[in-house]
Amino acid sequence: MIIIMKPCAAQDSISAVVASIEAKGLSAHLSRGEEVTIIGVVGDKSKLSTENLAVYKDVDRIVPVTESYKLSNKKFHPEPTTVKAGNTAIGPGSLTIMAGPCAVESEEQLMCIARAVKAAGATVLRGGAYKPRTSPYSFQGLEEEGLRYMQTAGKETGLATICEVVSLPAVEAAVKYVDILQVGARNMQNFILLKEVGRTGMPVLLKRGLCATIDEWLNAAEYIMSEGNPNVILCERGIRTYETATRNTLDLSAVAVMREKSHLPIIVDPSHSTGSYKYVPPMAKAAVACDADGLMIEVHNDPAHALSDGPQSLTFQHFEQLTRELKPFCELVGRSFVIPGNITDENAAFQNAAAENIAFGNAVSESVPPENIAIRDPEVK
Amino acid sequence: MIIIMKPCAAQDSISAVVASIEAKGLSAHLSRGEEVTIIGVVGDKSKLSTENLAVYKDVDRIVPVTESYKLSNKKFHPEPTTVKAGNTAIGPGSLTIMAGPCAVESEEQLMCIARAVKAAGATVLRGGAYKPRTSPYSFQGLEEEGLRYMQTAGKETGLATICEVVSLPAVEAAVKYVDILQVGARNMQNFILLKEVGRTGMPVLLKRGLCATIDEWLNAAEYIMSEGNPNVILCERGIRTYETATRNTLDLSAVAVMREKSHLPIIVDPSHSTGSYKYVPPMAKAAVACDADGLMIEVHNDPAHALSDGPQSLTFQHFEQLTRELKPFCELVGRSFVIPGNITDENAAFQNAAAENIAFGNAVSESVPPENIAIRDPEVK
Amino acid sequence: MIIIMKPCAAQDSISAVVASIEAKGLSAHLSRGEEVTIIGVVGDKSKLSTENLAVYKDVDRIVPVTESYKLSNKKFHPEPTTVKAGNTAIGPGSLTIMAGPCAVESEEQLMCIARAVKAAGATVLRGGAYKPRTSPYSFQGLEEEGLRYMQTAGKETGLATICEVVSLPAVEAAVKYVDILQVGARNMQNFILLKEVGRTGMPVLLKRGLCATIDEWLNAAEYIMSEGNPNVILCERGIRTYETATRNTLDLSAVAVMREKSHLPIIVDPSHSTGSYKYVPPMAKAAVACDADGLMIEVHNDPAHALSDGPQSLTFQHFEQLTRELKPFCELVGRSFVIPGNITDENAAFQNAAAENIAFGNAVSESVPPENIAIRDPEVK
Amino acid sequence: MIIIMKPCAAQDSISAVVASIEAKGLSAHLSRGEEVTIIGVVGDKSKLSTENLAVYKDVDRIVPVTESYKLSNKKFHPEPTTVKAGNTAIGPGSLTIMAGPCAVESEEQLMCIARAVKAAGATVLRGGAYKPRTSPYSFQGLEEEGLRYMQTAGKETGLATICEVVSLPAVEAAVKYVDILQVGARNMQNFILLKEVGRTGMPVLLKRGLCATIDEWLNAAEYIMSEGNPNVILCERGIRTYETATRNTLDLSAVAVMREKSHLPIIVDPSHSTGSYKYVPPMAKAAVACDADGLMIEVHNDPAHALSDGPQSLTFQHFEQLTRELKPFCELVGRSFVIPGNITDENAAFQNAAAENIAFGNAVSESVPPENIAIRDPEVK
Repeated sequence: MIIIMKPCAAQDSISAVVASIEAKGLSAHLSRGEEVTIIGVVGDKSKLSTENLAVYKDVDRIVPVTESYKLSNKKFHPEPTTVKAGNTAIGPGSLTIMAGPCAVESEEQLMCIARAVKAAGATVLRGGAYKPRTSPYSFQGLEEEGLRYMQTAGKETGLATICEVVSLPAVEAAVKYVDILQVGARNMQNFILLKEVGRTGMPVLLKRGLCATIDEWLNAAEYIMSEGNPNVILCERGIRTYETATRNTLDLSAVAVMREKSHLPIIVDPSHSTGSYKYVPPMAKAAVACDADGLMIEVHNDPAHALSDGPQSLTFQHFEQLTRELKPFCELVGRSFVIPGNITDENAAFQNAAAENIAFGNAVSESVPPENIAIRDPEVK
Repeated sequence: MIIIMKPCAAQDSISAVVASIEAKGLSAHLSRGEEVTIIGVVGDKSKLSTENLAVYKDVDRIVPVTESYKLSNKKFHPEPTTVKAGNTAIGPGSLTIMAGPCAVESEEQLMCIARAVKAAGATVLRGGAYKPRTSPYSFQGLEEEGLRYMQTAGKETGLATICEVVSLPAVEAAVKYVDILQVGARNMQNFILLKEVGRTGMPVLLKRGLCATIDEWLNAAEYIMSEGNPNVILCERGIRTYETATRNTLDLSAVAVMREKSHLPIIVDPSHSTGSYKYVPPMAKAAVACDADGLMIEVHNDPAHALSDGPQSLTFQHFEQLTRELKPFCELVGRSFVIPGNITDENAAFQNAAAENIAFGNAVSESVPPENIAIRDPEVK
Repeated sequence: MIIIMKPCAAQDSISAVVASIEAKGLSAHLSRGEEVTIIGVVGDKSKLSTENLAVYKDVDRIVPVTESYKLSNKKFHPEPTTVKAGNTAIGPGSLTIMAGPCAVESEEQLMCIARAVKAAGATVLRGGAYKPRTSPYSFQGLEEEGLRYMQTAGKETGLATICEVVSLPAVEAAVKYVDILQVGARNMQNFILLKEVGRTGMPVLLKRGLCATIDEWLNAAEYIMSEGNPNVILCERGIRTYETATRNTLDLSAVAVMREKSHLPIIVDPSHSTGSYKYVPPMAKAAVACDADGLMIEVHNDPAHALSDGPQSLTFQHFEQLTRELKPFCELVGRSFVIPGNITDENAAFQNAAAENIAFGNAVSESVPPENIAIRDPEVK
Repeated sequence: MIIIMKPCAAQDSISAVVASIEAKGLSAHLSRGEEVTIIGVVGDKSKLSTENLAVYKDVDRIVPVTESYKLSNKKFHPEPTTVKAGNTAIGPGSLTIMAGPCAVESEEQLMCIARAVKAAGATVLRGGAYKPRTSPYSFQGLEEEGLRYMQTAGKETGLATICEVVSLPAVEAAVKYVDILQVGARNMQNFILLKEVGRTGMPVLLKRGLCATIDEWLNAAEYIMSEGNPNVILCERGIRTYETATRNTLDLSAVAVMREKSHLPIIVDPSHSTGSYKYVPPMAKAAVACDADGLMIEVHNDPAHALSDGPQSLTFQHFEQLTRELKPFCELVGRSFVIPGNITDENAAFQNAAAENIAFGNAVSESVPPENIAIRDPEVK
């Protein structure tokens, strides 16, 4: 920690700061410049609170020298971390795709989507059972019932599963059914929740908060890791800026910055960040190109009737096309990526069948024939 | 809800949207312009999901016409609301000052501060027992012990009390001890917590999230109110912007905007928003001038040794001077505000005594005589 | 300047930085901590480029210690500056109101508004002759003709005059007609323009850029002042944030921050920052309360037919009511403010007459009777 | 344009709006919902000012239906545009790399860099002769002398040349020497300058403003194009957000959004957006992967002694390695990209020689041997 004194600082003021540092058993190291005096603190500065010295007379600024996060810090753990979850591993050498619906709507829907995304190369099934929604009047999720469907779909397909948790009871339920717990953007600084998922020891995907800095994000990871859980996966999902042409602004540089600052794996969510299915493929490719360890992508059998976030969901066909296009990018960046099968052949029937079975699906299925969905719109905020 | 079609929209595309609307039992109202066709939805649009129509062919944009919040909306409740808490009432006609330390550190400290802020005109005592901190290695609060001190201080002084709650267990504890529950900025979209404080029926102070829009903020209030709890107080505490000269950017226009959009009382926190004691007085005056219903201000007996947020805390003397300066502003805007006594006479002894008793206080008290704190620094980020 | 080395920094790396500093004739002062080594530069660091040392091996970060602006810096000029313009002076002890239309539309309109704002207490007439507009298809101003009207209105009423300049030819023209040159938000970093207005020696009102930091703003002032022109007035007019409920986010804390960092007078523009006439009065009062030296307010005889920024313009009646309400706030903060007359009595006839004469005014004047303007809307973005 | 009335809107208020629309020769189309009435305007809405109707009684909101930019709008020009400049063409089918120093420092330096970037695949030489700098005390560029060096380097190497223009005199000078005029981020809304570069008819690279929305950016392009100049190239170079880990936040989604909204080619500047040479390669790859038409990259023979923006400049070796890595990405996205030669072989000598000749180079060249630059730092703000 460095204390920069004001140009006019009296010797008494400087002495008071020095005395205060030494009173904590630390050393103060003075550097008198032509204009200002600088005081360096030598020793364990956790004994000092940055904020307190700031109120001393003639103190101009306090500059922290070291980061407050340690366990997530690359400086103290230079090798990249791989997090294992179910049959998959997130980290160097492979590209992990987590795909599935925004919200779990029914068992049939989820199973249908699970088979489709597996065929196209996903190894993790995503699906929300607890949906944090801006308005209390929006669909809030199937809760534990949704978790059970996730477990069934995971077992049947061999996919690892991930579900967002929004409260301690949700954590207690989720640990019984899924392989990865997700902490959403709105809860990135819900420190109680962070500690709780830390205590589970399970893999945790930590989404970046809407207005979280890189440092705050790593400090949130530190909350989880300081409970003894090293299995943290970071997920960039867009930050809030003044620009409204996309739902959020995808900060892909954060991938590169994290490579410098942390050893944790990082994946990118092009669905929530852009808010439009149209922007998902180019941003997914960009994420792979800048060396993300994986992608989280929303896929829905029937986006026109999805209960949540339809406009940003890919259809099976879109998703299959995207993974085929992604494969050569993976080769370029040295990541393995396997596409087991062909969605269209295996799952086309499911997609159409499911469209008739899920909630909201029947009434409009005739008046909205598939071709109406062919060209869709990106300008959703 | 209005659906704006693309300039090129085929008649089939328009018909598909209309059919989809009518299938829900709503009416579609077409307006064909020279360039584009617009479709208005007549009826209860909660039957339609904005997001789903956005994926139809040739749909350009969906424009919502009505707000998703109802209970907090001034359109449906034009008269301003007054929220009663303990011996005080927050709303039109009076200025409510909530003051106290960022964190409750000890019983003596809290009692000392409680007397001081009461003498200077505060009617609500603030104090954090559960501290959400960016780093897991920072002081996290005294928890239930802190709540008990709050209760004691409230009883002895007659001040109403407010404490932040960060989890369901914290809510359960806090309802036994304090008069107002505070939902902090980081938890503004912790919907589980919002519902829980809603169910208590107690007054709830809802701080604006760091990057929350006015609409999201009112939707968060709606979560609380839709549980049957009308006692919501809004609190503007600064938003995150690119500017780093202040800790956050205090958005005082939000007070004026809320007067147009909502009937709920709104108070302003100049301490957290600016991050420096120096900026608290001018921003407090500005808040009163633009018709805020109250202020939340951090006051500490010994800012140089506060366990949290020292640089933004006022000393007793600063606080007393501020309330004296605020009084004529209250008269100008038609709000009653009473200053019962003189802090210096009643509490000066406490301030000095407390400085010797609280943690961290002894070691440096001699090397940092009061005058060292006289001129302090604003540039804390 | 402080150079913070990486924890792992080799002695060779440290020596290379030191050698580089000493090669410039400066001294390097080492402070070896337990984790990192810090190098302080003693001497005139303008000889070093911060950015260059950042590329040296094992350098972690460069921390500048002193600000790059000098002439606008309070540290080197502690007394507040008063800028004189025409018959008025902007600075401590008085409140200066600059009022008038967004765009000069005609001589009659301008004269009518000039008389009205003078009667209500304004001492500076604002009016745009060169309008920077987002779209090339919007009205761009009357240019030199508009400047001549400004001069005439200034002479007749005794008001000082201010007009925005957007190019070197505009500066050349404006110096002949008006008392204060305004550099708009979009041109705050048009350094060529800043130097040019600097060379005129005339009072310059420098609006803050839409996304300018306080430091960039003061550096822009430095451009003007380094040409030998000390007559700079700062104007806070809102910054761009994610919030869209107001046109921009008025950063009133900037007034308080500027009081710490600079000696220059600062005024506030509540019209452009909020974008709605409804929010102008509360924000104007807040600005006075937090010690702004003045206000810039848009006033129009007929907002419903203004050629630019109608929704944020006050009518004569609104403006007169506002200045009457502001007067006691001025007294509270120790600023003189004189209201020469009563707008309604002196100017009501002009307002109505002008409505018939200005462009666009005739056609709709009957279909939009005055009462239609009585309640207006704030939600303009 | 759609006018949304307030829920309570009186019939008189609705009639007044309708009358005002009809008075302009347009049609008003009413849609009465259960809660609100909506008025659609049919006809050429340029006859109406959005802002004026907003002040009418009981008007809640005005929603624009069509964009204000036409010439840059994909809706009216669906085929992608290719802009030719010198021997190169920016648009579909090829990747254009513009590379060179931030500032032109000397003829030898520029020639050396020109040969190196050409060998590695660049087809456009960038170099600043007029440098807009935050502080008036920083190096401001060689001006016309720098332009002459650009011309010489272009002729000798066959590279097209691009230089930023910051004023009308700079435009007049630049048209004589370079192939592409660049309008920088700070001048994106310097409308006088936009019109002037429009009148030249030359290719113009228009950088996005630091806080410009996509719509404002396209309106700025419209200023250039409405002067009869269709040769506009867009350049995403990062926007200002709250995040400080990178110099700006590179908004790569803007590339995808522009593909939907405009037919103009778009290139990406990973140097200015991230501010660190370390982040340039991953972001350059990401830009190619999401289908940018080109890249603008800073390359310097001696970043440790660059007069401007050293920390974000690549060395010749870095640049050569990057273009080799980019080549297979170009193939994947279907863009031709040719690497004529090997930088190391042809230019290594120049790099070392130049380091001895340019200003500032001699004094430190011995104390900073090449290996000191091997590991460099990203945390420059």
